[in-house]
Amino acid sequence: MADHGEPLRRTRLGRGPALRLGGCRRRVDEARGYPEAFVDALTKAGWMAALIPEEYGSSGLGLTEASVIMDEINRSGGNSGACHGQMYSMNTLVRHGSEAQRRKYLPRIAAGELRLQSMGVTEPTAGTDTTRIKTTAIGSGDRYVINGQKVWISRIQHSDLMILLARTTPFDQVSRKSEGMSIFIVDLHEAQRKGMSVRPILNMVNHETNEVFFDDLEIPAENLIGEEGQGFKYILTGLNAERVLIAAECIGDGYRFIDKVTAYTRERTVFGRPIGQTQGVQFPIAESFIEVEAANLMRYEACRLYDAGEPCGGQANMAKNLAAKASWEAANACIQFHGGFGFAAEYDVERKFRETRLYQVAPISTNLILSYVAEHMLGLPRSF
Amino acid sequence: MADHGEPLRRTRLGRGPALRLGGCRRRVDEARGYPEAFVDALTKAGWMAALIPEEYGSSGLGLTEASVIMDEINRSGGNSGACHGQMYSMNTLVRHGSEAQRRKYLPRIAAGELRLQSMGVTEPTAGTDTTRIKTTAIGSGDRYVINGQKVWISRIQHSDLMILLARTTPFDQVSRKSEGMSIFIVDLHEAQRKGMSVRPILNMVNHETNEVFFDDLEIPAENLIGEEGQGFKYILTGLNAERVLIAAECIGDGYRFIDKVTAYTRERTVFGRPIGQTQGVQFPIAESFIEVEAANLMRYEACRLYDAGEPCGGQANMAKNLAAKASWEAANACIQFHGGFGFAAEYDVERKFRETRLYQVAPISTNLILSYVAEHMLGLPRSF
Amino acid sequence: MADHGEPLRRTRLGRGPALRLGGCRRRVDEARGYPEAFVDALTKAGWMAALIPEEYGSSGLGLTEASVIMDEINRSGGNSGACHGQMYSMNTLVRHGSEAQRRKYLPRIAAGELRLQSMGVTEPTAGTDTTRIKTTAIGSGDRYVINGQKVWISRIQHSDLMILLARTTPFDQVSRKSEGMSIFIVDLHEAQRKGMSVRPILNMVNHETNEVFFDDLEIPAENLIGEEGQGFKYILTGLNAERVLIAAECIGDGYRFIDKVTAYTRERTVFGRPIGQTQGVQFPIAESFIEVEAANLMRYEACRLYDAGEPCGGQANMAKNLAAKASWEAANACIQFHGGFGFAAEYDVERKFRETRLYQVAPISTNLILSYVAEHMLGLPRSF
Amino acid sequence: MADHGEPLRRTRLGRGPALRLGGCRRRVDEARGYPEAFVDALTKAGWMAALIPEEYGSSGLGLTEASVIMDEINRSGGNSGACHGQMYSMNTLVRHGSEAQRRKYLPRIAAGELRLQSMGVTEPTAGTDTTRIKTTAIGSGDRYVINGQKVWISRIQHSDLMILLARTTPFDQVSRKSEGMSIFIVDLHEAQRKGMSVRPILNMVNHETNEVFFDDLEIPAENLIGEEGQGFKYILTGLNAERVLIAAECIGDGYRFIDKVTAYTRERTVFGRPIGQTQGVQFPIAESFIEVEAANLMRYEACRLYDAGEPCGGQANMAKNLAAKASWEAANACIQFHGGFGFAAEYDVERKFRETRLYQVAPISTNLILSYVAEHMLGLPRSF
Repeated sequence: MADHGEPLRRTRLGRGPALRLGGCRRRVDEARGYPEAFVDALTKAGWMAALIPEEYGSSGLGLTEASVIMDEINRSGGNSGACHGQMYSMNTLVRHGSEAQRRKYLPRIAAGELRLQSMGVTEPTAGTDTTRIKTTAIGSGDRYVINGQKVWISRIQHSDLMILLARTTPFDQVSRKSEGMSIFIVDLHEAQRKGMSVRPILNMVNHETNEVFFDDLEIPAENLIGEEGQGFKYILTGLNAERVLIAAECIGDGYRFIDKVTAYTRERTVFGRPIGQTQGVQFPIAESFIEVEAANLMRYEACRLYDAGEPCGGQANMAKNLAAKASWEAANACIQFHGGFGFAAEYDVERKFRETRLYQVAPISTNLILSYVAEHMLGLPRSF
Repeated sequence: MADHGEPLRRTRLGRGPALRLGGCRRRVDEARGYPEAFVDALTKAGWMAALIPEEYGSSGLGLTEASVIMDEINRSGGNSGACHGQMYSMNTLVRHGSEAQRRKYLPRIAAGELRLQSMGVTEPTAGTDTTRIKTTAIGSGDRYVINGQKVWISRIQHSDLMILLARTTPFDQVSRKSEGMSIFIVDLHEAQRKGMSVRPILNMVNHETNEVFFDDLEIPAENLIGEEGQGFKYILTGLNAERVLIAAECIGDGYRFIDKVTAYTRERTVFGRPIGQTQGVQFPIAESFIEVEAANLMRYEACRLYDAGEPCGGQANMAKNLAAKASWEAANACIQFHGGFGFAAEYDVERKFRETRLYQVAPISTNLILSYVAEHMLGLPRSF
Repeated sequence: MADHGEPLRRTRLGRGPALRLGGCRRRVDEARGYPEAFVDALTKAGWMAALIPEEYGSSGLGLTEASVIMDEINRSGGNSGACHGQMYSMNTLVRHGSEAQRRKYLPRIAAGELRLQSMGVTEPTAGTDTTRIKTTAIGSGDRYVINGQKVWISRIQHSDLMILLARTTPFDQVSRKSEGMSIFIVDLHEAQRKGMSVRPILNMVNHETNEVFFDDLEIPAENLIGEEGQGFKYILTGLNAERVLIAAECIGDGYRFIDKVTAYTRERTVFGRPIGQTQGVQFPIAESFIEVEAANLMRYEACRLYDAGEPCGGQANMAKNLAAKASWEAANACIQFHGGFGFAAEYDVERKFRETRLYQVAPISTNLILSYVAEHMLGLPRSF
Repeated sequence: MADHGEPLRRTRLGRGPALRLGGCRRRVDEARGYPEAFVDALTKAGWMAALIPEEYGSSGLGLTEASVIMDEINRSGGNSGACHGQMYSMNTLVRHGSEAQRRKYLPRIAAGELRLQSMGVTEPTAGTDTTRIKTTAIGSGDRYVINGQKVWISRIQHSDLMILLARTTPFDQVSRKSEGMSIFIVDLHEAQRKGMSVRPILNMVNHETNEVFFDDLEIPAENLIGEEGQGFKYILTGLNAERVLIAAECIGDGYRFIDKVTAYTRERTVFGRPIGQTQGVQFPIAESFIEVEAANLMRYEACRLYDAGEPCGGQANMAKNLAAKASWEAANACIQFHGGFGFAAEYDVERKFRETRLYQVAPISTNLILSYVAEHMLGLPRSF
C-alpha cells in the first residue's frame, strides 16, 4: 500500500512551480498545472468561502452572489473548474452537518486552512444511476470501513477534505432504492495513508480529475453527516445549487468568447474590410450573444428562487441547459472567426473552447435535463 | 373613383355572418372571416384600450399588462393579429398627439365607438428602408394632399382610423434622411370616399392586410400629429412596444403548441406505448419549452424597462427574436408529433402553425434584429 | 346508406370547373380544387403509367425515370401529391397481381381509362404500427366482406381503384404479427354504392385526403392480390419506391424554392443594394442548395440500387430524410427572404411552403427513419 | 542569423523518440510528437506518392484513389494532417513543373528520399485574400531573393521541400491583381541555413505548423515553377484537389466517430438498459451517419469529375462543406455519449474531436465556401 499517497505527494510538491507561473493561465494549461496562486488569492479574499455563514467566520452570502463569483472568474478568462467544488459541496455541510462538524470545519475552511474541494459520488458502473453505487461503508463500533471505487473525483490532489457517498445498507435490503446511502466527510491526507489510492485521468481539459479506489479505508463514525441512510437525499439538495453555479460559469465563458471574437473581428481586416462587418461573421456572434443573455436571465431567476427557499429545480436545470448551449455556440463562433489563430494556444481561445464543452456532459448531461423537463415540468411519461 | 369604397363595404357587410359564427376560430379561418364577435367582446371588456390613460376613459395600464393581454389571446388559441394594431399604435397618439387630438379620439376609442387598428408606414419599393418612402403629403392651407402607395396595411377594413406616415419635405431637401416625414391621423371612412382605394392581399394566414393607394386624398391639416417633419422619430418610439407585444404573442403561441402536443402525445398510443414516452418525441418538445420560458423572461425584462422609462431597445429586439424562434420550434414539434392529424384543420394546429411563422418576418425580420444587436449592442460595424 | 356516394358525386361534378381553371395552380389551391386538366395531360402523355411494362401498353420505365417525372412536376411548381399515388401503388399490382389481374387493369390504366390513385393502409388507432390494423376481410365463398375504418386515404374522389389492406386472419390467431393480412383491389365506384363511405379531411394543403368507413362492403374474391395472408409483405416491397419518389418530389420542391428566392433576392433592392448581396440572405440559400444537391445524389443512388434489384432500404430512407429536410430548409429561406410577399398567395411561395412540410410526416415520419437507420444500419437496439 | 536553423535541428533530433513510440497515436499526441514511423510506413508502401505518374516511379493513381488513402488513415483513427501536404502539393509540380524539375524531384519523392510536405501561401496580414501577399521574390541573374513572412506553414520540420508563392511584380504594377505572383520549389535544408527562420505555433491539435520568416533568402532561378507571374493560377488549380482530399479525411473521421460511439452506446448500460437504446442517444448518431453518407456521395462525385478532367469546383467545395459539417456532428455525438469518458485521453475520442474541428476553418472556411456557392453556383452578387 506504499504507493497510495504518491499522487498526492507529487501534487503537493507541484505547488511551488505553479506559484512561480504567477497565474498565467495559458502556461498552467500547457503544463497541466494547478492554478495554486489564483486559488490562494481567491481564498484569501474570502470568495471561496462565500457560502459559509457569518457565525462560522465568513460572509454567508447567497447563491446569487456565489454565482457571480463563478461567473466573473470565467468571464475574465479563468476556469472555475479549479475551485468550484467548494461552492458545490459547502451547502451539504452547512445544511446537514451537526453543530460539532460545522464548528470543526467551517471556520478553518473560511480561514483558508482547509479546502473542501472534492465530492465522491460517481462510480464507473453506475453512471448517472446513482442508486446503483457499489461503494460500501460498513459501520463497526466507532468506525466505518469503506470499500469500492469512484470516478471523476476532481481536485482531490488539491483538497484536504472530500464528501463521500457510500451504501450503508445493501440495495436489496432497502424498501426504496434511494435509501440506505450515507455521506461522510473524509480527511484526504489520512485516507491516502490508510486505504485510498488515486489514479489521475488525463483529459481534454486541464482539469484534475481522478479514479479513486478504497481498500478497507477506516474513517471515524463521527464523520457521518446527518442521519445514516439519508445521504442520497442530502446529495440531491445540493444538485440545484451546482447546476446554477455551472450555468453561471458557462455564462461567464459565453461573454468571454463574445468579447474576444467581437474585438478580433472588429480589427481583423481581409478583402479591405473588417471581417466583423460581414453578416456571415456577425450574425452567429449576435445569435450566441442573445442566447447568453437569455440564459443569464434564467440563471438569476433560479438564484432568486433558491435564495428565497422556493422550489427551483426546473429553473436550475433550464438555466444549466440554456447556458451550456449558449456558451458552446459562442465558443464555436469565437474559434471559427479567429481562423487559424483560434487554434493557436497563444490566443487563449482554444483553451476555453475545450473547457466549456465539458458542461454539456457534466455534472449532468443535456439528455438528462431534457428528460427532467419532459417528466417533471410537462408531465410526459418517464422515458427510461 | 366609385370603387374606392367597395372593399370596405364588402367587409362591413361581412360582420353579420362572422358574428353568427359565434367566435369559432376555425370556421372564421376557413371562411377567411374577421372575428368580429371576439374583438367586440375584447373591446367591451376594456382590454383593447388598456393603454389609454384613465383621464381619457380607460385603465392606463402599462406595457407589461398589455403584453399579458396579447399573450393570453394567443395562449388560448386566438390570434392577436386581428386586433393588436390598436395596442401598437396607441402610444403614438397618447404620447405625440395634441391635447385636442387626445380628447377627440381617446375617449371614443376607449368606449369602443372607434377603432384605431391601422398603421400606414410600409411601401412596396422602400421595404424596411423607411426613409425611402415615396408617399407625399403636400400642405396647402388647412389641408394636406396625399399621394402614393402603401402595402401590408392591416385591418383597414375593420378600423375607423389609421396613422399614416408620409413625406412632407422631399428626400433631397432634408439634411438628414430621417427628417421631413410626418404622421397624420386618417379617418378611413372619409378617405375611402375621397381618394383612397384598397386592394386586399390574400395570404397564408387569415390576416386581413392590404395594398392602399392614395390619389389626391385631402385630409385636414389639424390631423397632423406632433410637429411636421418629425414623424419618423415618433414612429420609432412605438417600435419597441410593438416588438415586445409581438414577443408576447409568440410566447402565447409557444405555450399553446406545447400544451396541445403534450396532451396529444401523452394519450396517443402506437407500438404499445404513448408516443410521448419516447425521447425522439419528448426532447424536441422539452427543448422548445425551455426556449419559450427563456424568451418569456426576456419579454418581462423588456416590459419592465419600458414601463420604467428606461432604454429597452436591446431587450425588445432580443425578446422578439427569442420568442419568434421559440414559438416556431414549438410549432414544428406540435405539427410533427400530431402526425397527419397536425395537418387536419379540425385539430387547430395547422392554423396556428401558419400564423406564428409570420413573426420571423413581421414586423421586423430576424436578419434586421441580428444586425441591430451586432451594431448597437456589440459595437460591430454596420453590415448594410 | 344513401349518403355513401355523396362525396364522390360532389367531386366528380367538380371536374368541370377545375378544367376551366386552365391549370392555374394557385386558383386551384384557393378553391381547394383538383388539378384535373393537369392530371389528364400527364396521363395522356404517358407519364402517369411510366412503370407499367410495355407488354401492358406503356413504357416500362424504371424507378429512376419515375422519380424524374415526380421531381420535374414539383420543380416546375406543381404538386405531385395530386397524382403520385399511381406511381406508388403500381408496382404492387405489377409484381404481385396475377396475370389475369394485370391484363384486366394495366392496359386500361395505361390508356388513361382507369386511375389507380389510392392505397388503403393506415388506420386511426394503429398509426404506423400497421400490424395492429382492425379492418377485417372475411372470406365467404366468392366474396370477402370488409368492415372497418381507414384514414389519410388520398385522392379517393379522383380515382377508380384502390388497393386495400385488411386482416383476413385475426391478430391472435397468427404466429407472426405480420401475417394474416391481405391486399385487395377495390372498385371505388361500386364500393361507394355498396358499403363504403368517405369523409374528406380539410387540411393545410390542398391535398384531397379522407377517412373511409367500410360497413359490410362485399368485394369479389378474385380481387385478392397474391396469396391470402401475405399482404403486409407485398405492401412493404412498395415502401422503398414510395420513399424514393417522395424524395424526388422534395428535391423538385427544393430546387423550386431556390430558383424563386435566388431570382427574387437578386432583384429586390433595399438599402441601396440587392438583398441577395448580404450574407445573411445568401448563406441560408446556399446552405439549403448544398443540402438539396446532397439529397439528390442519395436519391439517384437509391434509384440505381432499386432498378438493379439490389437492397436499397437504407438509401431509400436516407434519401427521403435528406430530401425532406433540405426542401424544408429551402422553403424557409424562400418564404423568409420574400418578406411579406412570401406570405401573399400571388407569389406562389406559401403554397409550396405548406405542401413540402408534409413530407417530414408522410408517408413515414423523420423519427421512424432515424429509428430504422439506428437499428438496421448501425446495429443499435430497437428503441420502441 | 545563427538561430535560423534551430527549430529544424530540434525537430530532426525529435525523430528518434517519436519512432520509439511505435506509432501509438495517443502517446504521440500527448508528447506533441510527429508520427515518423507511420509516415515512413506509408511512404514505403507507396501511398504517399500515389499521384506521381508511373514514368516517374510511382503508380499514377487518380484523385479518387488518393482520397481513399486519406479517408482510410482517418477512419482507422489516424490523422492525415501529418502527411496530406504531399498529396495536395503534388499536382502543382506534376502539372506545372518543367520536365527537368519533374525528373529531378518526382522519382526521389516516389522513392521516399524526399518529402514535399509544405506549401507556403498564407500570410498573416493577407488571410484568405491571397492576392494581397507581401512576400516578394526579386529576380536577379540566376537567383531570386525572398523576403517576407508566411503563417500556418505545416510540416516544415518534417519536409525537405516546400512550394512557395511570392510576388515577383508589385501589386501596383499589375493590371489584374491575380497576376505578378510566382511559385518556387524551395530546398528547406538549404533555406534554413541561408535566410529562413521558423517559429512553431503551439495549437489545439498535435499538428505541426509554423510561422516562417524570409530574410534575403536566395534561391536558384531554376526553382521557378512554370511561367513567372502565373503562380496564383497554378495554386488555384490545386485547391479543388485539396478540398476533396480534406472532405475524404473528414469522412474518415466521421465514420470513425460513428463506429466508436455506436460500439460504446451498445455496451454502456445505465438505468438497466444500453444507453444506445434511447432515442435521445441514437437519433443524433443516426443523423450524423446520414450526413456522412451524403457527404461521401458528393466526395466521390467530385473525384469522378476531377479525374475526368471536368469542372468540379462546385462539387469540391460542397463536398468539403458537407464533410466538415458531418464529421463535426459525429464528433459531438461521439464525445457527448461517452459522457466523461469522452474527455479522457485514453478513450481516443477527444483527440479526434479536436482534430476534426479544424476543417471548418482550414484550408478554407465555411463562410468562403458559402460565398463561393452563392456567387458561382447560384449567380448571387458577391458579398465582399
